[in-house]
Parts: sequence; structure tokens; C-alpha cells
Amino acid sequence: MKKKLVKEITSRDQDFAQWYTDVCLKAELMDYSDAAGFIIYRPYGYEIWENIQNYLNKEFKRTGHQNVYMPLVITEALFNKEKEHVEGFAPEVAYLTSSFSEQEDRLIVRPTSEVLFCEHYRKIISSYRDLPKKYNQWCNVVRWEKTTRPFLRGKEFLWQEGHTVHSNEQEAREETLGMLEIYKEMGKNLLAIPFVTGKKTETEKFAGALETYSIEALMADGKALQSGTTHYFGQIFSKAFEISFQDQNSKLQYAYQTSWGVSTRLIGAVIMVHGDDDGLVLPPYLAPIQTVIIPIQSQRPEVMETAKNIEKRLENAGFRVHLDNTNRTPGWKFSEYEMKGVPLRIEFGPRDLANDEVVIAIRHNREKRNVKIANLEQTIKKLLADIHQKMYEKALAHVQENTKVIKDYKDFKQAIEQGGYIKMSVAGQEAELMIKEDYQATARVILDEPLSNEICPVTNKKATQTILFARAY
Amino acid sequence: MKKKLVKEITSRDQDFAQWYTDVCLKAELMDYSDAAGFIIYRPYGYEIWENIQNYLNKEFKRTGHQNVYMPLVITEALFNKEKEHVEGFAPEVAYLTSSFSEQEDRLIVRPTSEVLFCEHYRKIISSYRDLPKKYNQWCNVVRWEKTTRPFLRGKEFLWQEGHTVHSNEQEAREETLGMLEIYKEMGKNLLAIPFVTGKKTETEKFAGALETYSIEALMADGKALQSGTTHYFGQIFSKAFEISFQDQNSKLQYAYQTSWGVSTRLIGAVIMVHGDDDGLVLPPYLAPIQTVIIPIQSQRPEVMETAKNIEKRLENAGFRVHLDNTNRTPGWKFSEYEMKGVPLRIEFGPRDLANDEVVIAIRHNREKRNVKIANLEQTIKKLLADIHQKMYEKALAHVQENTKVIKDYKDFKQAIEQGGYIKMSVAGQEAELMIKEDYQATARVILDEPLSNEICPVTNKKATQTILFARAY
Repeated sequence: MKKKLVKEITSRDQDFAQWYTDVCLKAELMDYSDAAGFIIYRPYGYEIWENIQNYLNKEFKRTGHQNVYMPLVITEALFNKEKEHVEGFAPEVAYLTSSFSEQEDRLIVRPTSEVLFCEHYRKIISSYRDLPKKYNQWCNVVRWEKTTRPFLRGKEFLWQEGHTVHSNEQEAREETLGMLEIYKEMGKNLLAIPFVTGKKTETEKFAGALETYSIEALMADGKALQSGTTHYFGQIFSKAFEISFQDQNSKLQYAYQTSWGVSTRLIGAVIMVHGDDDGLVLPPYLAPIQTVIIPIQSQRPEVMETAKNIEKRLENAGFRVHLDNTNRTPGWKFSEYEMKGVPLRIEFGPRDLANDEVVIAIRHNREKRNVKIANLEQTIKKLLADIHQKMYEKALAHVQENTKVIKDYKDFKQAIEQGGYIKMSVAGQEAELMIKEDYQATARVILDEPLSNEICPVTNKKATQTILFARAY
Repeated sequence: MKKKLVKEITSRDQDFAQWYTDVCLKAELMDYSDAAGFIIYRPYGYEIWENIQNYLNKEFKRTGHQNVYMPLVITEALFNKEKEHVEGFAPEVAYLTSSFSEQEDRLIVRPTSEVLFCEHYRKIISSYRDLPKKYNQWCNVVRWEKTTRPFLRGKEFLWQEGHTVHSNEQEAREETLGMLEIYKEMGKNLLAIPFVTGKKTETEKFAGALETYSIEALMADGKALQSGTTHYFGQIFSKAFEISFQDQNSKLQYAYQTSWGVSTRLIGAVIMVHGDDDGLVLPPYLAPIQTVIIPIQSQRPEVMETAKNIEKRLENAGFRVHLDNTNRTPGWKFSEYEMKGVPLRIEFGPRDLANDEVVIAIRHNREKRNVKIANLEQTIKKLLADIHQKMYEKALAHVQENTKVIKDYKDFKQAIEQGGYIKMSVAGQEAELMIKEDYQATARVILDEPLSNEICPVTNKKATQTILFARAY
């Protein structure tokens, strides 16, 4: 094994949680702030988030959504309008106060913005001509979590939340499933993560929703991570907030609504799906730096000249490229950009140049190859596409190898302790709650599949649905 | 004058403040929220902000800055580290609390993030090799303002704040002035606003800064609006926060710092510089919709077909274009997009098409002309450039016509009541404070110009600097 030159991190197998924290800090994705539970997004971490934003903004625009910005705060009167929603969020709300404000004027800092959108929609919607309204916002939200972990759970996190209003149920249902598909495709096209999608059980659904759908990812340690959700609200909120409209027959109707969101938690998913003992491994289309150029014997003028020339060529070809011409040693730089998960490294010294070649090192599988400088743009383009595909396939194989069908509850214990998904057809909530109590495994999604067994192995009642169980973050 | 078909707004001359609020609401830029002092940025308003963000992000990147995200909150211990800074912001801070938090754990919601950046910089900077660090963040901030107005002053606003650290004074001073220049250029290239730039007086500078520079804009009512600032901190914060580094001779040095920001207040500047009695007037490169297409007799198939064809052509040419094919009347649509300040309107019916022509109406000067459909892309491109230029020149003429040189304090009263800038060479703070007391006019910037009079007309002492005074928002 390669000797580490600079930053030591815990081995992934030895202590996954510590490995995760080490990667977050040493790949310079984030840092802790003075206020417990609030993190700093450093440039390298924030640029990953910006790349997610750019991808999604294009998708949102393509599908007719508009960005808006709602206030940071919600009055208590407004917040209390939808009972189930309040009960779901009340334990973790934080308040904004000032020296001038009275206790009874307390403002709730948004833990999510359903009620802000509803109140606005109530005011601006009156006719079927005003529908649909399909808004999204990028913002920070605050939830008073007791235990926090970088990107996965924090007192503050960054996200997008889409909120839409429709004149009929079918269109709202299509929106709910359509946005789920956009998230799933983002996994496939950008994050190289094969998300399993499906409906949440009653126990796991969003406070106030009729139905919640989720994208679930399987981490390298065998635990699941809920990575995004879409919600179908029906008329629950529209009735609580009086969002009504005159239909084409001049009849007053309540509107149908959805909401959906993904957050900086996706950064955590990327780390835990792809990372290894040398640090972060980034999928190429997400990576802030797709190719790093590290010249060897850079004091030689022809070496530095070629390095700058290659940098310029690759930039012009549209790649995100970084030439490291600092006076650190090549070995230090190799480790540094491996830690940061840069997909490709171009290295070369005078001898390589004599052959019109450079060496390309591939981060995710540690392969190295000599390539001609002449066709570098095309080589890089092909390599990045190939890396993306292979990283996706590897993650998909991990999901497939770690999804077990269980028909006898006796087998559940061993399976869940090995990690991964367990597929089982059960009798519903009673079984779900027993499994949670017995093994701290939760229903990730209801699968849209035929039953794998007729009788629920947990309750011995008639099985009604096939559920994917896992221990989860 | 054209009859208003839909939305009446107050005349600008009659009541400028009411006119402003009317435009904000009726052009659908914003709406009020349930929480006093917090506003909703509606899609049309938010997209203006996104266009500012896109412009500045390119400029920031071009000049070597990186985006980050700091927490929403600051611990009181951290906040209290730089005395002058604390005193400046203490009266308007808001706190974040939860049911679980104690009074002594109060977290301050960032009114600005100097101290958060400083604390982070302290941790990550140790050598001259780590410098410069040039970070920027886009975020919301909270200031407990007593009186609020949409975009101009709110309890929450959106902005960018750049924070940089340098190894020497010269580089930090260049950064301070360089960013001021980038803001000024944004006025020229994007907002069509001729900003006057200069240093703030001691009275008006930022709490904790050694020097503050400002971009000032003159509104149509003759009042000035501080539209952005850049600050040179020297070593004030680096000493308070222990941001030190080993220089090339291994000597420990304190770093030199800057910060700079512009906010959603720029939207207010655009409204008040360019707007008229028919509503908003947007400069073309900032406008969410650059050209609206309004077909007349759109039930005729050849009309709608041409409308869609033109829309596609203009989109392909890279313009932001909107075809309004709703069933409202053309007159209603004309008013609507005039209210929204769309720079160009393309209208046509069967008779125009028979001549292979469309009518183009120009928002800012109300001109109309017939143009051939064949060269529409080139015509639009030229028109937008021309409109931008004319809007800038008009705003510049307004500044020039409303800048008076005063050498006798007797003339000050009449001049300030007419509105605009007053240029006067004075003896410094004593004169500044008297003028503020007498006429509620403040020093906008110190001009880098020869003295216009030797003796200060206010104090009769020797004049030392030439200052631009105005009443301001």
C-alpha cells in the first residue's frame, strides 16, 4: 500500500463514522463552527453543492418551475394552522427574538416552508387560470437536532424545497412522481448513485402529507440514507390555508398540492457511497476539479510550459481543471488530490514529454496509463464518461449484492447485522413497528413489486405489501 | 396619455414613496409576509436577483474568489471580540433560541459575517503560502430594523459578502478598490446605473473598518442610495481574532483584511432610477424577460404559428423571451408587461404579417417601429444594446443635472430641497455634523478631486476635503 505522505485518516472498515468525519475535514469540505451543530461549508464542499444546484436548476426550469425566496421566519399563528404538520415539527423548532420583541411575538425560524408558501398561494390564486403554480426555493433551514453530523444532520442545513399547486389531483400526483424521477435521474447522471425509489409507509411519511416518496441510497457500511423526498398533499394544506380557485365552471374548488426537496445531505451520500481509505472519491460530473495537473521537475521550463499549455487546452474544452504549480513535492500533491477525490490526475516529467506523453492516474480504481498529449481532450472526455459509468455500476452492484429477500423472520437478525437492504413482504404497520423495536431497522420504502411471501414472517398475518427495510442514518 | 387598462399606480411625482411601493407589488416583484419586515421575493423579483448573482459570480471567479457558506449564527463570545464592530451592530441584532437553550447560550443571527470568517481564517491560515484567501458567500442576514421598506431596508435581506485576507497592506488595499471597481462596472454593464464612488467619512464608515468605500446612486426623486460598500480593515480584525501567519522570513505577522458586499437593495435602486408612471423599467441585460411577444388576433392560425416561430428563433439566439398566448386582451397584456418593465414588446396581427413585419414597442422611451421579421435576431440584439446605452446615459444626465457645487452655505437649503447631490469643500467632521443637523443631508462620499473652495462655507475653517452631500435612503 502507498505510504501516506500527509494526512492520515481512519480506515473505513475500522471505524466508518470516524472515517467519515476524517474525510469531511481532511478533504476540506467543511469545518465546525463555534456554534455546536452549525457547520462551515468550505470552498471545495460548497462547490459540490453549487454543481448540484446548477444541475437541478436546469431540470427545474426545463419542467416549468420558478425560483422564489420566502422569509426566514414564520409567525406562530401561521405555523399552527395545519395540526399534523405542527406536531411533526414542533419539537425541533427554533425561535427568532430580539431585545425589542415580546414573548408572544415569537417568530419560528423555518424548519421547512410549507406554511409560508401556502399563505402566499392563498393570496395570489383565485382562478383556474392562475394554476398550476410551480415554485422552488434554495435556502437555509433550522431544526434543533440533538445529535448532529456534518452534512447528514445539522441544526442548519441548505436545501431546495419545491412547492406546487394544481387544479386537479392527477396533475399533482404526476408532479409528485415526476420530481421523484428527476431526483433519481440526478443520481444516475450526476452523483453516480443508484437511488431506490418508492412510497414511504404511514409511519415514515412527512408530517401533513398524504403520501411521501423517497430516494434511498445504500452507504458503503450497509446503512441506508434517505436522500430526498417528494410529497403529495392532496387538499390537506389547501383546506387548512383556504387555497381555493374558481374552476372553468365558476365553481369554487380547493387546490391540490405537492412539495419536494433535497439537501446538502446529498454531499454526505456521495462521500459514503464512493469514498475509500485514501479519502473522497468524486464522480466526474460533480467534481469541482475534474482533472488536476501535477508537473514533475517543474523547475524545467519545458515542463511548466507544457503544464500551462495543457491546462489552457483542457479549460477551453470545457473541463474543470486545476494546475498545481506550488512548490510542494509531487508526492504531497498526489496524496492531497487523492484525499480530495479528484477523478483524474495528469502527471509528467521531462522523460514523458520526450515521448509526447503524460501519465494519467485514475482515482477510483487506482489505474495508471500513458496517453499521447495530442488527443488529450478526447482522452479526458472518454475517461470521465467511463469513470462515471464504472462508479455508478460499482454502487449498483453494491446495492444488488446487499439486498436480501427474507421470508423467515429468524433470518432477519443475521441479515440486518451484515448490513444492506432486506426485502420482505409484511402485514403492514404492526410488522414494521416490531422490526423497528427488535432490530432498529426501519421501512425505507414500499416496493411496487409482487409479494415475495403470502404470509407476513413477523406477524403471521396475510402479507399486504413488500417493504425494503434497513438500518438508516 | 394611454389609458390604464388594469393596474393603477400612484404617479411618481405625486407621491414617490407610494409609487415605489405600488411598483414593487404590482410588477409582482415581492409581497409582504405575515411577519412584519420580512418580504417574499416573487419569481419576477427573484430572477432579477439571480441575474445579479450570475453577473457577479463570473466576476468573482475571474478575479480569483471562491464561494463558501458560513453558519446563520454567531456565538455571543465570538461576536464580542471586536469592540467597535459589536457596538455598531448590537442595537439591531436578533437571537436564535430554542425550547432547549439557556439564556446564556444565546446565538446571534448574523447581521454580517466578519467574525465568522475571521474565526475560520484564524484556524486555516498559518503561512504566507496560505495567502491570499478570497472568499465570498451568498446568504440571508438579519437586522432588527424599526422601519422597513421592500428591498431597501428589511429585517431580513439577501446579499453577498466577500471577505479576504492578505499578507500585505498593498494587496488588501488593491482588493478593496478592485472590488469597488467591479461594483461600479456592474452598474455600467448590467444595471445601467452610473454609480458615484468614493471613500466614506469617519462618521459614515462601517463599524470596525479603517476605510469604507461606497457606490452611490441617485434616485429619480433626488435622494441618494448607498448601493454597496467595500471595506479596508487593515489589521483591526486580524489582531482581535489572532489571524497571523509566518512570512517568508519565518516572522509572525498579522494579516490584512477586506470585506465588501451588495444586496437585494440593488433591486430598489433599479426601480427608483429607471421606473416611471407606467411602472418598472428594466435595463435589458438585467431583465428576466427581454422581449415579450404579444400576437393580435391570435385565434388566426398564421398569427400563432408566427408567434411560436419567433419565440423559438429568439430563444435559440440566446434572448430571454416570453410569448404570452393567454386569452387576455392585447390591451391588458400591453399594460401588464409595461408595468413589469419588459424592455421590448413584439406585437403583430395578420396585416403586419402580410408585410413580413412586426411592430416593436420600446418600453423606456415609448417608441414604436415596424421591423422586418427576416432580421429579427439582429434587430433585437441592436435594440437591446441601444436601450441599455440610452438608459445609462439618461441616468447619467440625471446625476449631472442634479449635482450642484455650493460655495456659500446660504445656498445649501434651497439646493438640498430641490434634491440631488451637493458638492462642497468642507473642514471635515464638524461641518458634516452641522449639515446633518441643519438639513438631514449626509456625506455620501469624499471625492478625489481638487477643492472647489478654500474656506469651508459651514465652519469658516480651512477646507480639507470635497464631499458629496445628499439626503439619502
